[in-house]
Amino acid sequence: MPFVALNLLDSGVPLSMVCAVIGLVFAFLLIALVLRASAGNERMRQISGAVQEGAKAYLNRQVITISVIAVVIFILLFLFKDHPTAIGFLIGAFCSLSAGFIGMRVAVIANVRTTQAAMSSITRALRMAFNGGAVTGLLVVGLALLAVSIFYVLANKMVGHDMAIRSLVGLALGASLISVFARLGGGIYTKAADVGADLVGKIEQGFEEDDPRNPATIADNVGDNVGDCAGMAADVFETYAVSLIGAILVGALTLAGNPAAIIYPFVLGGISVLGAICGVLFVNVANGKPAAVLMGGVLMSAIVSAILFWPATHLLFPSGITIAGATRTATQLYLASVVGLVMTAVVVAITNYYTSMRYSPVQKIARASETGHATNIIAGLAVGQHATALPVGFIGIAILLSFHFAGLYGIAIAVMSMLSMAGIIISLDSFGPITDNAGGIAVMSNLPKEVRAVTDQLDAVGNTMKAVTKGYAIASAGLAALVLFGSYVEELKAHNPAFAQFTFSLTEPKVIIGLFLGGLLPFIFTAFSMDAVGKAAGAVVREVRRQLQAKPGILTGKDTPEYGTCVDIVTKAALREMIVPALLPLIFVVAVATIKSLGPIVLGGLLVGTIVTGLFVAIAMTSGGGAWDNAKKFIEEGNLGGKGSFAHQASVTGDTVGDPYKDTAGPAINPMIKVVNIVAILIIPIFF
Amino acid sequence: MPFVALNLLDSGVPLSMVCAVIGLVFAFLLIALVLRASAGNERMRQISGAVQEGAKAYLNRQVITISVIAVVIFILLFLFKDHPTAIGFLIGAFCSLSAGFIGMRVAVIANVRTTQAAMSSITRALRMAFNGGAVTGLLVVGLALLAVSIFYVLANKMVGHDMAIRSLVGLALGASLISVFARLGGGIYTKAADVGADLVGKIEQGFEEDDPRNPATIADNVGDNVGDCAGMAADVFETYAVSLIGAILVGALTLAGNPAAIIYPFVLGGISVLGAICGVLFVNVANGKPAAVLMGGVLMSAIVSAILFWPATHLLFPSGITIAGATRTATQLYLASVVGLVMTAVVVAITNYYTSMRYSPVQKIARASETGHATNIIAGLAVGQHATALPVGFIGIAILLSFHFAGLYGIAIAVMSMLSMAGIIISLDSFGPITDNAGGIAVMSNLPKEVRAVTDQLDAVGNTMKAVTKGYAIASAGLAALVLFGSYVEELKAHNPAFAQFTFSLTEPKVIIGLFLGGLLPFIFTAFSMDAVGKAAGAVVREVRRQLQAKPGILTGKDTPEYGTCVDIVTKAALREMIVPALLPLIFVVAVATIKSLGPIVLGGLLVGTIVTGLFVAIAMTSGGGAWDNAKKFIEEGNLGGKGSFAHQASVTGDTVGDPYKDTAGPAINPMIKVVNIVAILIIPIFF
Repeated sequence: MPFVALNLLDSGVPLSMVCAVIGLVFAFLLIALVLRASAGNERMRQISGAVQEGAKAYLNRQVITISVIAVVIFILLFLFKDHPTAIGFLIGAFCSLSAGFIGMRVAVIANVRTTQAAMSSITRALRMAFNGGAVTGLLVVGLALLAVSIFYVLANKMVGHDMAIRSLVGLALGASLISVFARLGGGIYTKAADVGADLVGKIEQGFEEDDPRNPATIADNVGDNVGDCAGMAADVFETYAVSLIGAILVGALTLAGNPAAIIYPFVLGGISVLGAICGVLFVNVANGKPAAVLMGGVLMSAIVSAILFWPATHLLFPSGITIAGATRTATQLYLASVVGLVMTAVVVAITNYYTSMRYSPVQKIARASETGHATNIIAGLAVGQHATALPVGFIGIAILLSFHFAGLYGIAIAVMSMLSMAGIIISLDSFGPITDNAGGIAVMSNLPKEVRAVTDQLDAVGNTMKAVTKGYAIASAGLAALVLFGSYVEELKAHNPAFAQFTFSLTEPKVIIGLFLGGLLPFIFTAFSMDAVGKAAGAVVREVRRQLQAKPGILTGKDTPEYGTCVDIVTKAALREMIVPALLPLIFVVAVATIKSLGPIVLGGLLVGTIVTGLFVAIAMTSGGGAWDNAKKFIEEGNLGGKGSFAHQASVTGDTVGDPYKDTAGPAINPMIKVVNIVAILIIPIFF
Repeated sequence: MPFVALNLLDSGVPLSMVCAVIGLVFAFLLIALVLRASAGNERMRQISGAVQEGAKAYLNRQVITISVIAVVIFILLFLFKDHPTAIGFLIGAFCSLSAGFIGMRVAVIANVRTTQAAMSSITRALRMAFNGGAVTGLLVVGLALLAVSIFYVLANKMVGHDMAIRSLVGLALGASLISVFARLGGGIYTKAADVGADLVGKIEQGFEEDDPRNPATIADNVGDNVGDCAGMAADVFETYAVSLIGAILVGALTLAGNPAAIIYPFVLGGISVLGAICGVLFVNVANGKPAAVLMGGVLMSAIVSAILFWPATHLLFPSGITIAGATRTATQLYLASVVGLVMTAVVVAITNYYTSMRYSPVQKIARASETGHATNIIAGLAVGQHATALPVGFIGIAILLSFHFAGLYGIAIAVMSMLSMAGIIISLDSFGPITDNAGGIAVMSNLPKEVRAVTDQLDAVGNTMKAVTKGYAIASAGLAALVLFGSYVEELKAHNPAFAQFTFSLTEPKVIIGLFLGGLLPFIFTAFSMDAVGKAAGAVVREVRRQLQAKPGILTGKDTPEYGTCVDIVTKAALREMIVPALLPLIFVVAVATIKSLGPIVLGGLLVGTIVTGLFVAIAMTSGGGAWDNAKKFIEEGNLGGKGSFAHQASVTGDTVGDPYKDTAGPAINPMIKVVNIVAILIIPIFF
């Protein structure tokens, strides 16, 4: 079929844009569907309004803070790099911020409607929360695909092909850097509010979750939206865009002869938008247990993608492609893309095992709670560490296989295909915080207990889904970063002939030093992040204690707490505390590049070192955190003494320790390891 | 001075043996000094006898268990490797076990005498505890130096030089493998007893530490001796022997032409025995604050070594040495050895900062305890991670400098010089558990409160010293392992010409997969270790609860608890639970070597991956654990509400979590990363 083949080579990028637009249109239809549903009674709308207001206020201030930093970097790039890269940076930053805004806006619309839906049936509530998440999923993926392809097409026309490819790295940096800030700022906000509210509310005063007498409760609910929804949306936008750009880069750097290599990642992205839509439709018609229905949606999406990848790959590469001197068939490339899809399923299944309350790891933590706080913590830390084994093993297998099929390009394709599942995966992720908020609104609006029971049931599923999607995000981030490291090496060799023969050998001390320095980054990055949560949470505790002392009537319900001051304190603290950790990777890379005795060799080691320890620290933190959370839920379901028992108190401690692990420090590693790699690529022509 | 130079070349090894013997004789004089002191009254001797008996019983059973495994490995080596290596293995294993026995024997003699000395003055108690530790220090170092040099000299005569060098790797394996078992078995024992006793004693029943009504209290005190004393002594014997062997190996593999390269590490070791003796003498005559006096001893030891290294180096290398084609002067080699001495001081100072209650990290954890268990844990985890930054940074500098001075051999010399300080450093380390036990004996013997106050004061210093020496052990282990990795690469190239040009490049996917697999090892190794402590501690809790229920008279002092059953339970649990984690590194390496698609390239990456994450995990765990412990002590001194306050409860939780971190999982990483590298070197001729 040479005729059609030629066609896809020309029309691949435009067609993928069409798919992106279809995704966006579908998302708007879903928004209409969500908006048509009832937003509940006066009291519910009032509370959701307060949450909405707090979230908007925080995001506005976060945008201002981040914009200042973005403008500084834009100016630096404009002066010391080239203009297309600087403009790419601006676009990446802008889109990443927008993705965050979208995530938050949709969530605050969907949560109160989920509460309302929970009054009629669990299936309705499930669909409402899921559709809210699906809007974010489709919008973020559509936006990322559209932004990268429009930028690529325009830059191609205006500054030529080579420059277009290079300036895409600027777009990647914009997306990643903003995403580190959004993940950290949102993550610190949500967990400072959550931990603060729990410490003083649950442990000191014996309040239930979301008790309206707790002055920090609105801040806690705002946190779900700005951290779990906005932060996550920015993060996934970044992961998607960077994976796409990474694949394009590898295609351009190592396979310069064959334009199809650059078109292929776009085509995979476009096809998967259609796959994601099928997955969303499946969840909206299927009946059954919530977890099973959601997993069915993921499976549907993967199957549709896997089927459509086959003809697309053969159309683009009718006579295969030459990689590092050897010819690879279209089938081999297809198999590399299937590796990505299978990896998604495998990582989802593994994380589910370690964080769902149906399996032994979570139950082990729950049982360890019977002997106290300390044994709960020890068990949770151990589970988190155990949870790294299987994902890392499978990542190794995925690297071996995809490299076997098509070299570094094969790894890049596997990553892109893994990320192409993002549309449906985010739908799962957003599901959790939306139901969490829905439950909060139910309690604060004094709705019947049954409503909260429905949202609690969905919330436990949401916890696992959140952990699962984090495992997915981190595994894909690790692979994407490896692709970027490959690009760094190619760029360095192309840029400076002195390094043309250099091999980054482990027998070179500078490489080892680089591995150590890079390995350090995730450790201190997460240490600073946890400190930040600790400090901000401490401020919340002091404020709540102050209010309860000043107005004792709050406890009896006679006085209304000032929710606004807590929102304000957390807002300020989160914005202040995010700066140091977010700039850390940037400073590290530039410092290594500028110190004469270190230079590009140490920097190469650093990139890999950050990926290696980053992967372990991130998986241990997110899985451990998810397991602690569900161990508490397991006890709250009435096991091992149930609510109020000694074991329950210990499990609350574990859950609280897990909070910054799984929602602040852990997931922020994901964009961080990419920032490190992207900055390294960008500064090659400046320093080396 | 060519005449003298020639002399040292011939007499270097014999002279270092003489120094080792001097060290041993001095140790026996110290034992006589310790034995001359009073062992206190009847009750004190009774209690110390019970502890002694429990410790001996445990070590005997541990020896039997480990011997079975050692015999199996001996037979495998005898059949599949060569006889000298197998015999080396036996000697290494035997000496490592003996070192453990020595450490335990001396400690149980010194602790009751320290209690007695504490009745007269703090200086006397300090010197008694320190001299007890110094006996272990000098015996272990003397034994290691003597064992390696006698084996080297005899093997040289009997099987030739090449075979002698190779069979030293067998000795290293024997030492390392036994040390992993000893560290894990002892570590699980001590922390299971400690955590179990605390959970049910302090938290459930409100007992004080070492309350004789607590059925687990004798087991707890036994633990100090079998874990902190015996385990640590085996560990340091191993580190010393392996560093010496590593330096000899690098000398032989890369500098075959110059015999002085092999003699030099022996000479450094011999000189430092004299340095250590000077340090011990200093502590016995100096007056002042305990921490200052101890640090003075270390400084004295380092200065004496630094002065004596200078003439020795110049005598051995009158015209320098050729390394990788370039000539290095004696001064350059000397500077490499100084790097090791300075690194010791730097690591000691850094760990002191992070774990002493006089500085902000520990005080930060103490303050975080005011808002509860969870914030204490979050703060402690963060401090542990922060504590990795400076040591790793300085390790990087040490690598750069020593490599700059003399290539891989320079790194090996720096490690050997660092380890040559072990004599004085162990004296500090043993000091902690001896005073801890002394305190226990004081309480259980109903001695006046002032006695316990003296031992408590020394115990806090001991906590920091323990953390400090662990930082030292791990930093040196990381460097020693890097030297072993260098030997692996050289061996592989020498053995199989197919790998002669191979570079272990980071752009090779198999190297990356190796880094991931190796990086995984410390995470799951420590996870299994923590699980082991959790399980064993749970068994203790259940037994104590059973006794208190069966004989309520125990609480009022009418009934005597059955201490023996707790000792028995912990003994069995520790021996059972140590097997899986201890065999893990062995299984990992052999599995990677035998799986066809992995092989020697992945294995090389694995070795480095284990070193990289092992270093971070070990430092984070030992420093974090030390900081938690002293944060509790800081509060117990009357700060932030003092004993019994809410903050104090939270700090007890942190201390308990820190226990397996700092005394089981963290320090066991140290021999583990060396086992991995040594096994890899040994199996090259079998599998590749």
